[in-house]
Amino acid sequence: MSTPEHQAVEARNAEFYAAFESGDLDAMTAIWLDDAQTLCVHPGALPVRGTGAINRSWALIMANTPYIQFFLTDVEVSLQGDVASVTCTENVLTADESTDDGSFNGAKAVATNVFVRTGDTWRLWIHHASPVMSDEHHED
Amino acid sequence: MSTPEHQAVEARNAEFYAAFESGDLDAMTAIWLDDAQTLCVHPGALPVRGTGAINRSWALIMANTPYIQFFLTDVEVSLQGDVASVTCTENVLTADESTDDGSFNGAKAVATNVFVRTGDTWRLWIHHASPVMSDEHHED
Repeated sequence: MSTPEHQAVEARNAEFYAAFESGDLDAMTAIWLDDAQTLCVHPGALPVRGTGAINRSWALIMANTPYIQFFLTDVEVSLQGDVASVTCTENVLTADESTDDGSFNGAKAVATNVFVRTGDTWRLWIHHASPVMSDEHHED
Repeated sequence: MSTPEHQAVEARNAEFYAAFESGDLDAMTAIWLDDAQTLCVHPGALPVRGTGAINRSWALIMANTPYIQFFLTDVEVSLQGDVASVTCTENVLTADESTDDGSFNGAKAVATNVFVRTGDTWRLWIHHASPVMSDEHHED
């Protein structure tokens, strides 16, 4: 079932990845709730809590990411009242100083992005991304 | 700030890990929302969606986990209306057929557990666990 509400959440999720791809820290900041309780887990890392610290983590990542592009697959939106969850597979292409000209590094991650309705828009409360190491399901 | 509501959510989160530790599939099933939109990401794996499929994933994991114990650290509860998020570091001890008698395997993961208030209790909507590969923060 894809309602206009689901579509608005999916569009907001796409804006999150567009902000990262374009290295636009202001756009990234504007997507997050301004709250001490926000949460960001970058792949393989410990949690970053609170929008101030999260902004600093993005600034650092953007400064060290000359090129990144996301192809999202398996995007699923789920709503519980004023909270919306988006899960997706992030198929990522990156290039940095260690990459040969004209080639890219590829990687795959799974993300859960949880948004909260604030007025007319949705803002990000939780971003949890994790590396996919196998197509099998692992135990905790 | 730890209100009675925060404490109820944290207790519910502890019940989730107790169900896993004791291999109690009925208790595990009872903690989840009965919904096609639930989401479970086991460390390093692709998402499992829907409570039926999630139950089957737990049955398989429990059958292959003779011993598991969790020590939770950095447990933080955050509330947004009728939705509550718990993030924690899972410090895990396991033993299986490949482990020497009297010894354990240790591992660390980060989990985001999102609960929804249903009547008098909280039920699990999203469990996303990811391996910690470094104490540094990684890019997506």
